[in-house]
Formats: sequence, C-alpha cells, structure tokens
Amino acid sequence: MKIWQKNVSVNKDIETFTVGKDRELDLQMAAFDVLGSLAHVEMLESIGLLTADELAEIQVALKQIYTEIEAGNFTIEDTVEDVHSQVEWLLTQRIGDAGKKIHSGRSRNDQVLVDLKLFFRDRIEEMVGNTSVLFGQLIELSNTHKDKLLPGYTHLQIAMPSSFGLWFGAYAESLVDDMEMMLAAWKICNKNPLGSAAGYGSSFPLNRTMTTRLLGFESLNYNVVYAQMGRGKTERILAQAMSSVAATLAKMAMDVCLFINQNFSFISFPDELTTGSSIMPHKKNPDVFELIRSRCNKIQALPNEIAMMTTNLPSGYHRDLQLLKENLFPAITSLNECLEMTTFMLQHIRIKDHILEDKKYAYLFSVEVVNELALQGVPFREAYKIVGETIENGTFAPGIAVHHTHEGSIGNLCNAEIEGMMADVLNQFKFEKTKEALQQLLA
Amino acid sequence: MKIWQKNVSVNKDIETFTVGKDRELDLQMAAFDVLGSLAHVEMLESIGLLTADELAEIQVALKQIYTEIEAGNFTIEDTVEDVHSQVEWLLTQRIGDAGKKIHSGRSRNDQVLVDLKLFFRDRIEEMVGNTSVLFGQLIELSNTHKDKLLPGYTHLQIAMPSSFGLWFGAYAESLVDDMEMMLAAWKICNKNPLGSAAGYGSSFPLNRTMTTRLLGFESLNYNVVYAQMGRGKTERILAQAMSSVAATLAKMAMDVCLFINQNFSFISFPDELTTGSSIMPHKKNPDVFELIRSRCNKIQALPNEIAMMTTNLPSGYHRDLQLLKENLFPAITSLNECLEMTTFMLQHIRIKDHILEDKKYAYLFSVEVVNELALQGVPFREAYKIVGETIENGTFAPGIAVHHTHEGSIGNLCNAEIEGMMADVLNQFKFEKTKEALQQLLA
Amino acid sequence: MKIWQKNVSVNKDIETFTVGKDRELDLQMAAFDVLGSLAHVEMLESIGLLTADELAEIQVALKQIYTEIEAGNFTIEDTVEDVHSQVEWLLTQRIGDAGKKIHSGRSRNDQVLVDLKLFFRDRIEEMVGNTSVLFGQLIELSNTHKDKLLPGYTHLQIAMPSSFGLWFGAYAESLVDDMEMMLAAWKICNKNPLGSAAGYGSSFPLNRTMTTRLLGFESLNYNVVYAQMGRGKTERILAQAMSSVAATLAKMAMDVCLFINQNFSFISFPDELTTGSSIMPHKKNPDVFELIRSRCNKIQALPNEIAMMTTNLPSGYHRDLQLLKENLFPAITSLNECLEMTTFMLQHIRIKDHILEDKKYAYLFSVEVVNELALQGVPFREAYKIVGETIENGTFAPGIAVHHTHEGSIGNLCNAEIEGMMADVLNQFKFEKTKEALQQLLA
Amino acid sequence: MKIWQKNVSVNKDIETFTVGKDRELDLQMAAFDVLGSLAHVEMLESIGLLTADELAEIQVALKQIYTEIEAGNFTIEDTVEDVHSQVEWLLTQRIGDAGKKIHSGRSRNDQVLVDLKLFFRDRIEEMVGNTSVLFGQLIELSNTHKDKLLPGYTHLQIAMPSSFGLWFGAYAESLVDDMEMMLAAWKICNKNPLGSAAGYGSSFPLNRTMTTRLLGFESLNYNVVYAQMGRGKTERILAQAMSSVAATLAKMAMDVCLFINQNFSFISFPDELTTGSSIMPHKKNPDVFELIRSRCNKIQALPNEIAMMTTNLPSGYHRDLQLLKENLFPAITSLNECLEMTTFMLQHIRIKDHILEDKKYAYLFSVEVVNELALQGVPFREAYKIVGETIENGTFAPGIAVHHTHEGSIGNLCNAEIEGMMADVLNQFKFEKTKEALQQLLA
Repeated sequence: MKIWQKNVSVNKDIETFTVGKDRELDLQMAAFDVLGSLAHVEMLESIGLLTADELAEIQVALKQIYTEIEAGNFTIEDTVEDVHSQVEWLLTQRIGDAGKKIHSGRSRNDQVLVDLKLFFRDRIEEMVGNTSVLFGQLIELSNTHKDKLLPGYTHLQIAMPSSFGLWFGAYAESLVDDMEMMLAAWKICNKNPLGSAAGYGSSFPLNRTMTTRLLGFESLNYNVVYAQMGRGKTERILAQAMSSVAATLAKMAMDVCLFINQNFSFISFPDELTTGSSIMPHKKNPDVFELIRSRCNKIQALPNEIAMMTTNLPSGYHRDLQLLKENLFPAITSLNECLEMTTFMLQHIRIKDHILEDKKYAYLFSVEVVNELALQGVPFREAYKIVGETIENGTFAPGIAVHHTHEGSIGNLCNAEIEGMMADVLNQFKFEKTKEALQQLLA
Repeated sequence: MKIWQKNVSVNKDIETFTVGKDRELDLQMAAFDVLGSLAHVEMLESIGLLTADELAEIQVALKQIYTEIEAGNFTIEDTVEDVHSQVEWLLTQRIGDAGKKIHSGRSRNDQVLVDLKLFFRDRIEEMVGNTSVLFGQLIELSNTHKDKLLPGYTHLQIAMPSSFGLWFGAYAESLVDDMEMMLAAWKICNKNPLGSAAGYGSSFPLNRTMTTRLLGFESLNYNVVYAQMGRGKTERILAQAMSSVAATLAKMAMDVCLFINQNFSFISFPDELTTGSSIMPHKKNPDVFELIRSRCNKIQALPNEIAMMTTNLPSGYHRDLQLLKENLFPAITSLNECLEMTTFMLQHIRIKDHILEDKKYAYLFSVEVVNELALQGVPFREAYKIVGETIENGTFAPGIAVHHTHEGSIGNLCNAEIEGMMADVLNQFKFEKTKEALQQLLA
Repeated sequence: MKIWQKNVSVNKDIETFTVGKDRELDLQMAAFDVLGSLAHVEMLESIGLLTADELAEIQVALKQIYTEIEAGNFTIEDTVEDVHSQVEWLLTQRIGDAGKKIHSGRSRNDQVLVDLKLFFRDRIEEMVGNTSVLFGQLIELSNTHKDKLLPGYTHLQIAMPSSFGLWFGAYAESLVDDMEMMLAAWKICNKNPLGSAAGYGSSFPLNRTMTTRLLGFESLNYNVVYAQMGRGKTERILAQAMSSVAATLAKMAMDVCLFINQNFSFISFPDELTTGSSIMPHKKNPDVFELIRSRCNKIQALPNEIAMMTTNLPSGYHRDLQLLKENLFPAITSLNECLEMTTFMLQHIRIKDHILEDKKYAYLFSVEVVNELALQGVPFREAYKIVGETIENGTFAPGIAVHHTHEGSIGNLCNAEIEGMMADVLNQFKFEKTKEALQQLLA
Repeated sequence: MKIWQKNVSVNKDIETFTVGKDRELDLQMAAFDVLGSLAHVEMLESIGLLTADELAEIQVALKQIYTEIEAGNFTIEDTVEDVHSQVEWLLTQRIGDAGKKIHSGRSRNDQVLVDLKLFFRDRIEEMVGNTSVLFGQLIELSNTHKDKLLPGYTHLQIAMPSSFGLWFGAYAESLVDDMEMMLAAWKICNKNPLGSAAGYGSSFPLNRTMTTRLLGFESLNYNVVYAQMGRGKTERILAQAMSSVAATLAKMAMDVCLFINQNFSFISFPDELTTGSSIMPHKKNPDVFELIRSRCNKIQALPNEIAMMTTNLPSGYHRDLQLLKENLFPAITSLNECLEMTTFMLQHIRIKDHILEDKKYAYLFSVEVVNELALQGVPFREAYKIVGETIENGTFAPGIAVHHTHEGSIGNLCNAEIEGMMADVLNQFKFEKTKEALQQLLA
C-alpha cells in the first residue's frame, strides 16, 4: 500500500525514509564516535561539567563499548536512529544518568563532524598504505623489465620505442602526484570541528584546544560556522583526492586491456586470473581489470555527485548532508580493493619478449636513426632526408638498440629519484602522531 | 554548402576543424612558450647541439619576441596553426635557419606540456593573490562586525544566535582549506616535463636537470611517459583546486542573495551595485552575486568535464587533449574576476543593526538560557524543563547578550589564528623562486 | 591479510571482487529473467531446437520458479554467480539436462540485455504511475488554493503577485514535460535485444520477431551489434529521464524549505511530519523535504556517472557494464519513494492566508496599478510616472485584488488544459499491451 | 588596476561583468527575437493595445531589421546590453515612440524564453537534418560492405565473426534511438512561453493562444510560473538529447581510432584526411576522429554542467540562468560540425579485405562450428567436446563463411527495417508546420 493511501499513522514510513542507510553505514564510524566522546568527556571534566568520578565511570564504559565494536559485537538496533544514539543508549543502560551528561556542550552536528574526520583520517591512512605498496610493486617491475621494449604510441599510432621500464615507472610516478592531492585532503581532514555544536558554538566554556590535542588533530576548524560548513566540503575534497588515484588505476587498466588484446599481445596473465572458454582458447578476458576500470571511473564521478548535492545550499546544517555517506563510504572500500587487486594482478603479469622484432614496428626507429646521424655531424635536415629516402626505397635498416640517456628516459629511468619524491610526500602525513593520540585516549 | 557536398579539396574545412580555438587560446601561452624555448636552447648549447654564437643569436631574437608579446604586439596568423609555429616562423624570418635548430630534442608534445605548466604556475599565483586579498577583506569585516548578531539557521530554521563576525570569518577560514588544494595543484604544476619529447624521450643527451633549474621548477616529471600522462591530469587537478575556491564563493553568494531578500533583510548594498526599477523601489537585485554564483557553479562542473574528456584514453598522446584548454583557460579568468568582484562588493556591504531584536527571533536564546541555568548549578534536565515551561506559558524572557568564550565562537573568533593558518599555507608556494628563475632567463 | 600477501589460491578473492553486488541486485531482475526464458524456449521449439515435450517440461518448471520469485522464495546462493546461473541451476536440478538446452542460441550478454529492458519497462510503469498520482495531487491543490496569493520573486526579490494556484500548478505542468522524457526512455527500452547473443548474432535460425511479440516489445533492436551497444546507453537515457523528474521534485523541495522558514512562513506541516525540539518550539525542520532534495540531486548526478563509466569504451561488451546497476537500481527505488513521499506530504500541507496583507509586500502591486491606468487610456509612460510619484511620496495605495485573465495566469490557470496534455503523454505509453503479453507467457 | 583598488565609479567594470558574453551570443538569437516581436505586436493590436496603423508601422520596421540580420548587417553595440535592447533601440530610432509600445504585456524574461525556444527549434531541425544525412551514409556503407567480415570483440578479446555491414549499421540504428531523445527535446521546446512576462503573468488581457498559433508552436507552456521554470530545464533536456547523439559519435570515433591503429589495420583513410610524417610513413594520425571524440565527450559533460548551475535554485527567475548559453550555444554548433565531419570522413573510408584470413582469427569460428554440428543433430555437449578437441590437438579447421540468417545478423541486416524506424521518428518532428508559421509572420 502506498504511503499516501494510508489513513493511519505513517510515522514508521517517515522514519524509514529519514533514517535511510544510516544504521548500516554508521557502523563504520562507531569506533570513532567513541573516541570523540572519550576526548569530549575528558575536556568536560577539566572545565567542571563532569566530576572526576563521573569521568572515570564514563571512560570505563566507553572503552568497553570500543572493545565490543572492535570485536564486531556492536550493532545499531532497529529502534535506534544512528550510531550516536546507540552509543548513548548503551551508556545509559550501563551507567545510568551519567551517560547522558556526555552531551553537554555538544550537538549531533559536531559529533558527526568529528566522527567523519576521524574516520576519514583512518581510511586515508589505509589508502595511502595500499598506494605505497602498489607503488613499490610498480617500481620493482619497472626495474626488472627495464630492458624490454614495446612500441610507444601517439594518436594510438605506432610512434617511438618505449619500454616496460617506462610503462610501469610512469604509473608509479603518477601515484606520487596523486599522493599530493591525498595529502591536501589529509590536512583538511586533520582539523578538529568538535565544539562547534550545531554550527554556532556553545555558551559553555569549552576547551577546544584540549580536545584537539587529545584526538591528535594538527589544528582546529576554528570558526564554528566554518566547522559546520566543512561538512560536504571535506567529503568533496576527499573524493577529489580519491578520484586522482582512481584515474591512475583506470588508465593503467585501459592499457592492460589493450595490451592483453590479441592484436597487441604485449602482456598476459596466468589462466586462473583471467576468464575464458574451453571452446575459445584464445580468450583471456581481463575481467579484473575491466572491473577496476569501471569502479575507478565510478569514483571519478563521485566528486561531481557530492558537488551536485551540496551546491547552492545556504550556510548552516541541512539534512541533505546525511546522504553524502551513501556513495562515499563504499567508494573508499572500493578504492582500497582496487589498489590491492592491482598490486596482486601485477605480481603475476607476464611480459612478452622481443616485441619490437616484428617488422611492423621497424619504422619506430626512424627518428632514432635521424638523431644518430645528426649527432654524428650530419645537418638535421640532411639526416632527415637521407632516412626518408631509405624508407621510401625500402632499404631502411633500423638498429634494434635504443640509446637514451637523459633523465627519465629508457636508459635512465630515475626510479630512485621517483622513490625519493614519494618518500617526501608520504613523510608529511604523520600518521604516527594521530595514532599515538588515539591510543593514549584508549589507554 | 556542407562539407560532404563538396567535390573539391576540403583541406581548409579540415584545418578549421582541427585548429579549433587554438589561435585564440594559445595567445595566453605565448610568453611562456618563449620562456620554455629560452631554457631549451641554453641547454642545447651546453650539450653541443648549438654553438655559442647560434645560442646568442637565438636568445636575442626570442627576447625580442617576448617583448612584443608583453607589449601586445603578437598575434597568431591565419596561416599558422598555433603559438609554437608562430614563434618558430618569426624566428626563422628573423635569423634564418638557426631558428629551426631550436627544435632538436624537443617535440610539439613536450613543448605544450611545459608551456601549460608555466602558464598554470603564473595563473595560480594570480588566483592565490586574489584569494589572499579577499581573505584579508573577510577577516577585516569579521573583526569590524564581530558584535553584530544575526540568526543562525539549521535546516533553514531559526536555531541559535550567530554573528557577522562568525559569518565573514567562516568564509575566510574556508579559503584557507581551499588554498591547501591549490597548493597541491601548484606542486603538481611545478615539475618540469620538458625533455619528454613525444612522450618517449629522446636519443639526444638532453640535460633535463638544467632546464628544470633554468625554468625555476622544483623538480622534474622524471619518467617521460608520465610527463605526457600529466596532460589532462594536471588540468583536472588544477580545476579541482579551482572548484574548491569556487564552491566557497558560490555558497557565500547564495547566502548574500538570501540575506538581501526582503524577508531576511540582514544586509544591503549601495544602489549603484544592485539593479532595480523606479516603479519597484523595493527591488535591489543582487545580479553581481547571482552571476558569481553561476560562474562558480560552472567552475564546479569543470573537473568533471575534463575527466569525461580524458577517461578511458590509453596512455600516450591523443589529439583529444587539445580541447581541454577551451573551458579551462576562460575559467581561470572567470575565477579571478569572481574573486576580485567579491572583494569589491564586500567593501561596500552594509550590515543591518539590531536584527535579533525582532520578536520572531526570541526563541533563538532558549538554549543559551538553559545552559546558563546549568552553569549556575541547576541540573540540565531541570533547567531544560524550567525554560520549556516559560516558553509554553509565554513568560520566556531571553537575554539579548551572548556570552560565548571558547575558541572560534562569537566572543572569541580566533581570527588571528586563522590568519596564521593562511600565512602558513601561502608561505609554501614560493612564488619568488620561480619568478627569479624566469627573470634570469630574460636578463 | 591483503590479497597480495597470500601465497595460496586467491580464487575466492577474485570471485568476490568480480561478482560484486550481483547476487543482491540481480534479485530485482529475477522475474524478468524467467519471462525472457519463457519467450526464448517457445521460440526454440518453433525452430526445432526443442521438442514439444521438452518445451512443456521447461515451461512448467520456469513458471514454478516465477511463482517462487513472486512469493519471495528465491535467493541467489553464495556458490552461484548471478541470477541467470541460479535459474539455470534450479532448472537443471528439477528437470535435468533439458534445463541446459534453454541456452541454445543465447548468450549471457543478450540474456541480461533483455532482463534489463523488461525490468526497466516495469519500473518505468511504476514511476509513471507515481508521477501521475502526484500530478493529480498538485492539480487538486492548485484548484483548491487558486485564490491564495503569495509574493512572486525574481532574483529572490519581491516582484509581482503570485498564487498557490500558480505554484502548485507549475510543478504539475513540469511533470508533463518530464513524462515526455520518460516516454522517450520507454520507447528505447521497449525494443527487443534478445537474439543478439554475444553481440554478433547466432548461426541458429532464431526467430527474433517471435520473441519480440511474445515479450510485448514494440519493435526490435535489429542490428545485433547495436543491441549490445544499447547496454549503458539505455541506462544513461533512463537515468536522464529520471533526472528530469528528480529536478522537478528537488526544486519544489527547495521552495518548500524556503517557504516553511520563519522569515517566509507561507506554509506549514503538522508537527508529526516535521522534526522539532521542546525547547525550540519555533523549529519545524522539514527533514523529509531536505532528504527528497538530496536524493533527487543525487539522481541528477546519475546520468553523468553512467556516461563516465561508459565513454571511450570501444564497441562490444566489456565487463565494466556490470557495475551500472549499482547506483541505477537503488535510484529507481529512491525516485519512487520520493514521488510517493512528496504526494503524502502535500496531502497535509497548510497554506497561510492573507500573506500579501503584510505591508512589506505592498509594492508587489505597483506594476498592476500602472497597467490598470494604461488600460484606462493613460499613456504607459505617464501611468508609470504617476505611480512612481505616489510611491516616492508615500501615497501609493495598491489594490489587493489581482485581475489576470490570460491563459495560465492567476485568474485563468488552465489546469484542465494541463491535465489534457498529461493525458496525451500518458496515453502513449501503452503499458497494457506489454502487460498482456507477459501474462500470456505465464498463462 | 584591480577593481577593489579603484576609488572612482566602477559602473563600467560591473557592467562588463554582468553583460558577460551576451553581446556575442545573443546574435544567434537575433532573428528569433524579431519573430517573437512580430507575433507579440500582432496580438497586441488584436486586443486593442496597438492601433492598426501602429502595428503596420512596427511590422515594416521589424521585417526590415530581420532582413538586415539575415544579411549579416546586424551587430549589438557596445553601449547596448543585449539583443532585445538592440532591436528596441533600432526600432525607436526608426519609427519613434511606437517602437516602445511593443513591450506592453511582455517582460525581458518571457522575451528571452521565447527567443530561446524558437532558436532551439531551428537548431534541432539542423541537428536532425545532419543526423539524417549521416544515417543515410551509414546505411549505405552497411549495405555496400555487408560481406566484409571483421573480428567481433568482447572484453576487447577476439570473440566471434562480425562484419562491416553490422558495424556501420549499428551506428545507424544508434542514431534512431538518439532521435527519440531529440524528439522529446523538440516537443518540450515546441511550447509557447510568451505571455508569462516576468514569470507571474500580466494584468493585460493577452491572447497567448494567438501568439502560439502565429509562432507555430504546438502548444503553450500554460502556467506562467512553469513557463519561467522551463528556463534551465529546457536547456538541460536539449543538452541531454545532444549528449545522446554525441555518445554515438564518440564511440564510433573510438572504434575508428582503434581500427586504424596498425595492430588492427581494419580501415584507412586517404592521406589528405589524416596527418603524418615523411619520416614516419607508418603514421596516419586520425586527428579528425580524435577531435570528434573529444568534442563529443565535452558535449556529454554539458547536461551535468547545466544541472550544476541550476540545481537548488528556488522557483522564479535568477540571473544565474544567463550563463547557460555560454557552453550550450557553441555545443550546438560543435555537434553539427561533428555530424557533418563524420559523414564526410566516412565518405572516404577504406575497408581492408580478407581480414579474417589472418590465422590469429581462426578461433573466431569455433562457436560457429559447434552450432553447425548441433544443427546437424549432434547433441550440443558432444559437439562442444568434439570442437574443443580439434582445437586442442591443432586440427581445428574453421570454415571461412558465416551463415547467419536471423533478423539483424550478418546475413540479414534488416537495414530497411532500421530505415523504417528512423522515418517513423523523423516524421513526428513536423518541421514544416513551424516553418510555415514563421514564413507567414514575415510575409
């Protein structure tokens, strides 16, 4: 029966509509909700809004809930709206009215803001970790296969000699720039919104500097109106950083699907990592890479979705923001899976040898030959003409060796320098500091 | 006549189709094209591909062209395809065959890559400068109007007291986070792609480290395949950073359009900055802010457009990339204009006094009164009940003063701390270093 | 443990990655998968690839599965990849090898194509039905409240008199145009792809005209390569049609959130349909409409996501397409819920009377007065000047009645004509014909 | 000097900012602005707001301006804001005060609405015409090359035999569905908004039915609030229809770039239609198709941009809408050029013969052979096993002929049926009716 056909109470329908997927999605934030509360109550005690005894009692109960969450023994019940209410309900069940005091000087709005920031910090660390592993894999493959040549294409036309050293290394270096974007997202996530209450602050003498320190944030979202304005914006920026990693993976997946195609046949994978057919033995469908490509293109569309859902909303909280989790949370999981799966697949990639010996690639070397003559002193235009003539009359005989020496070229990949750049970026994340603070809270 | 109806040569039609808007858009890159060439030729001489005399001759001619560009005396002729060809043509006209030698070890592909990076660096500096001025304006307004209260809304419902100190300050702080994104874009732009040739490097013994230094780049896009892969990616990341600034401006413009509406009437602007009608004297149309909002929302859609045009393209150059300039270049100009125009308009904003004295805002203070009782020792639930009763029986008498003391609240805006955060971000751009390098090249 | 850390078989991980959400999402297509098979086998028998006995046996078994699906007694088991395999597995379990014969002349590719088309047809009917009910509600409200005036805004500035008759009617008429888009999506969905096999047809002498008739399709996707190319395209077009309805709902929700705001106070809803606070009795948070707005903006971003996931893929099937279901299927459910919920909320809307009697709206009538003088023969410029002067010297006395008579104006809403246009569009869907065909199949 | 540094009047800067690109873009609407005025004045005379003499005088002057526009002798002067003002200014110059009377009962808002609808109708007709020509070209190529086989790919892996008959025909049929979307856009454009004034109607007794007839519209946007709400919505829907055509062209362009690549080498174009290099004689860069792909992907991003610029705007006019022209108008031109250029290029396409004789394509026929055995009575599983074994032991000998007979398959393309479907869609546009009405106005 349609909701508009009912004569009786529709509270249940409206509740279902407004709660949406919160009960499912909020589970991912549960541990961080408890951590935020641990910092908040310690601060409340310091300004006299909780007694030392109350604080101690609350801390024990919150840590117990944290343990249950970590053990997977925590769910949000059907009668409860979201994770914040569930934690509060458990607390009140266990220690009585003291449990309700934890909400002094806090609103649902800044509670979810701080939960999200803590959650995003955690997931950024995971994404950075997975990126770093993939980066290492790519550098290793680049070094291993640095002498294996393949055609380089421009306009998808055979153009110049390239190498698997270059190909793997290019995607490694791409991840370095992606991490610059992720670092910006990290810095924006690593500021404390707690204490902004409903977006207009509190008349209680909160000590926001203290909760900032306790939660390991680098700084504060000072202005309370801005702290609330960060909702949606933080999500969009994180999604933009993720879209950068995703674009790198999607492009590599496209290359892989092309290179494994029988007209190219540059690479292959063991049968158990592709799908095929006994009757079509030539088929090695690269399903995993097609799905990586598709997932990553979906992630590339995510920042736009978030912008569409938040643009033209005036300042101040709107319930619209609740739905931003729905695609962002799964996208984080998906990107991590794509990073892991790409690493795994690349561990098993097989590179074809002697690709360029096929005569259709002969002309790849024409520029090389011209340059060689030029370096020997033949004027460039003359060299160009000479080679053009040998091509025309069919006597063109390319060398098969490539002598590139400059930085970043086939013969001088500069992988160590690329590794150095990556290390420089990764060192700026300072995950240790934030983790130590959280461990301290739980100690 | 349609192209498919013609029997004769269609070279002209195809050329028109393929050249597109290059002649017009490339003008913005002309000065940077010359700078890139100046670095390239100095390097070519160092590795023996140009004589000292040739170098000197080329340098004089290039600097002359640079001067003409700066003076506005440079155009791309109808017979010439793009800026690179135009500069080369001028050079050859003036110094003969030596002019052609500047293309050794370089391709159109890495030439446009380096032009774009230099151009983006320049425009980022301009956008950051304009952002910094707007930031200063907002902080100043926040300080000036820190005691003027206005209603704070959640769900667009009257909720809690806010202030113009908070409102202006929030947008200032928003720009700080936006600059973190811009810094990431800057870092990604500040790496040298020159020497990657057509995306597969060169057999000439180029010294890319030298051109990196000469052009003031912080580092290299080492891997030549990655250097080429940066096309499209750099544009998308820059657009993402711009979209962050744009989102801040668009949201403020939405607030302004709401606050100037007669049902709110919180702010106004001098008549000459709004449009109206002699017969509808009540109308003060905020056209400038509506257009800022619209332009900025358009910029918010730009990263998606770039992603749509580049996704699923295999690695290597494709002509598709040429068109990325078409919306990006005007968007940079547009964002700069929006930043300037917002600053200008805010210089003239008028804030209404005593807004909260209107009785419809009385309940704004209900939470304040509860908290006050709580701080005086009344248990929270008791305080809540007392205030609820006064509201119900119509005796609720709110104070009109707000005593918020914590960091970032109405009474403690922390604008100095926000200024400190902004300074920290801006200091990382190091525009001076890059400018000095370019001045050196032109010296 | 990460997948790349494992030494043993990772088949399970890869399977989990590749199956994705298919088991969950495919359930929505299960009934349609059976219907597609019923048509296919009847055709196979007609060309001699099944005996009459085999056909009869298969039909009984398929109808049994259909009954189980309708009763909610069907799941896709963890060992089974998708709905097609589950149905086949059940069939083989129950009737042995005959069950496998149903795949002659068919591929997984055209099987999912036809399932999707049948599923989309069904959901379009549901969306059209819900739209029609909402349309009726809006027309009714427009008629009921046709004399209640409210200010009309341009630039969000008070401009001219409007009415609730116009306001409700505008959204009704908007749905008419939305249904034109939905009709285009319907027509595109209502063509039969079955028989295209893997996208290149079959060497069996299939009778595609017969399955077209059996499944109630209006026509065929003739070209088998195009039939496959329709995957992704059909989804994008359906999402575009949905985005049109969503844009209408989102805009109305924005209006509602503004009109319920206390600075406007044009409308209200019963307390049980808004959320509030005992201490902030003024708050009537319009959560339902905020969520409708947010959900609908999310739907507006969907066509772009689909385009991002499919653009630049060469022709032919790619596994990427599998993921298009993930956001599209829930979006269909969400749009239906938004349509229902909007209807329900509007059933309870309360309109404020005498809004325009507030003196801040007096100037709304200035244009009316000028026009009135003009109609009485005063030259327009003179009339304009006269009214301008009364406004300036404070003697302006507007009438409070509005006499608009032309088509679509306050006094002549033309709701009957709008209903006529809606009926014309809805009549073109011909849902009956498709339903009869499917009932025939199940008979 | 920055605008915020100026002490003097900034009227000029603000005007430049607010006028934007209107002077340039509005030229495209000039002829339609005059047509709208011709209908409006004829109606004004019929309700007594103009005398017959005034009408005659105005008509002569307007037709004169129309002639000037058609002859290219019309510009919008720097002192004039937009096309509406320019036409009015010319009129007043030439016939004095009567010229000003044409604005009775009309506002700038409905004037631009009707201009846009007339302009879109005209351009839709052009796009449909170009699509129809391309469709014819594709059908012709499909028929001509119906016996030329090429490999069909799934997962970009060699899968089954396909043909150029199928390949060309698939894109032809794709255009049929695209025209369904364009038809929806046409219907939505073909309704008259004139008379809605500023979005709230007029107190003049306008006869909107009369202007509807005079301008050849099929119907009205009745509700005046909806007529205004159509701004932005009409643009988005038109862009969605265009995106459908664009997606078809972009996909074909991707196929072309792949098929012309040397690893595939299925097709080629004359040298003068590709770009190459004397030293790399193998290169035939498909620049035209790369640019078609890129332009069309840009068009695919357009509906999203329009949605981003309009979502969450409350009902009523906002100046934001002015900027929608900026990317939409050039996109229309661009799509028409892409359609023409695709037709032209295809006129010169060369298809390689005997592609499938290359032994790497042998396994393409394995499914054919299995099916053949099955049709001869061998049980399917047995047939499958037999063929599998011949493949395994190297004795597999595929036939080289393909016998597909069902609708839409290689041997039975059904191009006539596809042409029939296209004719059915095109017949619904009724361009003649609208053109006759406009010619009548100008008579």
